[in-house]
Amino acid sequence: MVGPSRFKGKSFISMRDYNRDEIDFIHGVADEMMPLEAEGTDMAKGRVMGALFFEPSTRTRLSFESAMLRLGGGVTGFADPGVSSAKKGETMEDTIKTVENYVDIIAMRHPDEWSSRKAAAVASIPILNGGSGSWEHPTQAVLDMHCIKHAKGSLDGLTVGLCGDLLYGRTVHSLMIGLSNYDVKLKLISPKKLAMREDVIKYTEGKVEWEATEDLTKVIGDLDVLYATRIQKERFPSEEEYKRFADAYIIDNKMMAKAKKGMVLMHPLPRVNEIATEVDSHPGALYFKQVHHGIWVRMAIIALALGVY
Amino acid sequence: MVGPSRFKGKSFISMRDYNRDEIDFIHGVADEMMPLEAEGTDMAKGRVMGALFFEPSTRTRLSFESAMLRLGGGVTGFADPGVSSAKKGETMEDTIKTVENYVDIIAMRHPDEWSSRKAAAVASIPILNGGSGSWEHPTQAVLDMHCIKHAKGSLDGLTVGLCGDLLYGRTVHSLMIGLSNYDVKLKLISPKKLAMREDVIKYTEGKVEWEATEDLTKVIGDLDVLYATRIQKERFPSEEEYKRFADAYIIDNKMMAKAKKGMVLMHPLPRVNEIATEVDSHPGALYFKQVHHGIWVRMAIIALALGVY
Amino acid sequence: MVGPSRFKGKSFISMRDYNRDEIDFIHGVADEMMPLEAEGTDMAKGRVMGALFFEPSTRTRLSFESAMLRLGGGVTGFADPGVSSAKKGETMEDTIKTVENYVDIIAMRHPDEWSSRKAAAVASIPILNGGSGSWEHPTQAVLDMHCIKHAKGSLDGLTVGLCGDLLYGRTVHSLMIGLSNYDVKLKLISPKKLAMREDVIKYTEGKVEWEATEDLTKVIGDLDVLYATRIQKERFPSEEEYKRFADAYIIDNKMMAKAKKGMVLMHPLPRVNEIATEVDSHPGALYFKQVHHGIWVRMAIIALALGVY
Repeated sequence: MVGPSRFKGKSFISMRDYNRDEIDFIHGVADEMMPLEAEGTDMAKGRVMGALFFEPSTRTRLSFESAMLRLGGGVTGFADPGVSSAKKGETMEDTIKTVENYVDIIAMRHPDEWSSRKAAAVASIPILNGGSGSWEHPTQAVLDMHCIKHAKGSLDGLTVGLCGDLLYGRTVHSLMIGLSNYDVKLKLISPKKLAMREDVIKYTEGKVEWEATEDLTKVIGDLDVLYATRIQKERFPSEEEYKRFADAYIIDNKMMAKAKKGMVLMHPLPRVNEIATEVDSHPGALYFKQVHHGIWVRMAIIALALGVY
Repeated sequence: MVGPSRFKGKSFISMRDYNRDEIDFIHGVADEMMPLEAEGTDMAKGRVMGALFFEPSTRTRLSFESAMLRLGGGVTGFADPGVSSAKKGETMEDTIKTVENYVDIIAMRHPDEWSSRKAAAVASIPILNGGSGSWEHPTQAVLDMHCIKHAKGSLDGLTVGLCGDLLYGRTVHSLMIGLSNYDVKLKLISPKKLAMREDVIKYTEGKVEWEATEDLTKVIGDLDVLYATRIQKERFPSEEEYKRFADAYIIDNKMMAKAKKGMVLMHPLPRVNEIATEVDSHPGALYFKQVHHGIWVRMAIIALALGVY
Repeated sequence: MVGPSRFKGKSFISMRDYNRDEIDFIHGVADEMMPLEAEGTDMAKGRVMGALFFEPSTRTRLSFESAMLRLGGGVTGFADPGVSSAKKGETMEDTIKTVENYVDIIAMRHPDEWSSRKAAAVASIPILNGGSGSWEHPTQAVLDMHCIKHAKGSLDGLTVGLCGDLLYGRTVHSLMIGLSNYDVKLKLISPKKLAMREDVIKYTEGKVEWEATEDLTKVIGDLDVLYATRIQKERFPSEEEYKRFADAYIIDNKMMAKAKKGMVLMHPLPRVNEIATEVDSHPGALYFKQVHHGIWVRMAIIALALGVY
């Protein structure tokens, strides 16, 4: 049986490290955090988190920081590598081995794909991966799944579309791996050149049924959940090719009209123009509510790693 | 009768939204915060403020943050838009709709004049305007008036000079509107090209008596309060024109000698050379004490908006 | 007898201001902080520290911030002068006279050698010097000495080598002054052009025995403690001259083999390549443990200055 001891003192690096029972357990703890967020708690009183963002981020950093503050703990760190010792030529590992003397837990984001694994290898305190290059963003996947469960009752039996840049989008990598623990059908909607990363396909082989397509309109009617992501211009060889796909994946009221009744629309944010603002008032538009699940899930993950749950 | 319910859950955007009774009420709460600052309080325990500074600021940001910490709450946010998702092309409204899931209240500064109105329109939590372009800086006006009351006993019956850049200076806009609720005479001292903003003049029409002049020496003898502000070089077509006014508005001991006995000198800070440092030891030099009123007033405004007072 | 009253309300600017009894007293308080770090304490509850870093820093800033959080206090400030009012032309003294209205204590770093003295001269709250140009870094010296005491039992009777850039390295200036209160022999190992700063030599004259050398291999066998620092390329007229010394002072396993048994190796960090990573697992490699002493010592210094110990 999964219990708090599975997580105490442990780093949180990749969705590859968690099975269904473990994800469900974290979700259960996150449910308990929902009332505590409003009431306040002193669970992490006296504990300090280091938020080390070697790559800038608003939402993930603020979400981790707020989660720690909601638990009654304190936060220090940096939001910008320009103010850190990295500028003086220090390796990331040395920064970690230094900062672990100041804090009880580290949440980090770094452009290097292996950063958080490397950090966890040298650290004697838990490292929480808040985004490692385009490899993974596991706490995002746990919150995404928590949000889906709350919206649809269960993950089992759902057809979920992952749409946009599936090659470089770290959130969809972690999400596909996480969802592969449930009875889910996936539609992988992307330009062929931005198809789902090969290692994720291999890792989930035999665990989840999926179908790849370039055409969102073709599959949107089958989806219970549409998870959209940003497509970045710089991934394409030409402006025309970029425009072709960026336009094809814009979700506006016209596109939503083709969706199955009750389909929910998610997005890791920030959006640029993938989702038209006219869709924001649609009852299935979950992307801002989705953000809130980040607090509860990160409260759970922090409390578990600190061993204070 | 004005009470806490007037402020609970409400944004604080413009001095236009507050009448004399409401300002007096906030000042009364600020008075109660004065001893609590030293003793400490847990009024806002478990609550979190987001300090979103899309435009850098030392004093306003630190003042809001410290006020929240003094109330026993926590703070997250950003001091620099470069580390925020704005860089990824996110709209300010989306940033607000995201961050409101992390925190209980937002204090923000933004270069756009309509920013905080727009933010409050989409947010379901209170937005506190910490400076919106050159439009308004309302919490500064409340603290300025609190400082004057403590120095002079009352606002009624005073002659107040607003000096410097009255066109682009957001603090003097909010202050003129705020003071128009009291029996105050205003001297508006500025180059003609930097005369008080037209919409402020119109808004306060019939509510406050004022006289405009370019000549500080002519009116300084009438003033109970002189509120100086910075004049920025880039507002002038030529170096000479800038120098002419910048020099005419420098407040040094010679200028202070022309003042009425008991006149107090204020400034929203930072000053560059508008006030000579030789004046700092003058008993009427209030500008550093003025800063302290920011803590008490912001403690009051935050506690009221959070509904924890 | 030295007691808390010696430190209450006082700034911490230079090692020149502390004698042996005072350093020992701080070390004793730091020892008491060691268990409190894990247990948590509310000693500084309701108190706020301003961390004003006019020059970026990871470790010193995070160490001060975490120390304050561990004491139960709150932290505000800036990590980067670019987000402060300095950009608007405000003097450092004005910034201090402003921020002292927001907080109870200020920890600051500034590129100007006289910065913290100047700040303390205008402030009515304690200023803690977290690095002032290449002049001093006194809290680092107190933590360095605390680390040595814990490793070697006592400072008395030790031979300590200070190696690297002794001219511009602020940590070694404060450390030499601090160590001169104990029965210590110093080896000053540096290129002649980067020999120990003249004012430090003069200040410690007659208080400590020292010998200068360019050759680390010649003296390493005599040392109980080797304190290495970074040599910056830009200090040298030519690439070759830089390489000659940088290479001569690289501490790798081969160099460590020449050391006396039990010698401990310290470094203020960040290191670039002065210490090879192969040395990290050496039992005498103390530099990451050394960091931890910063928390205990800064908890002690903050608590004493706040008068809450």
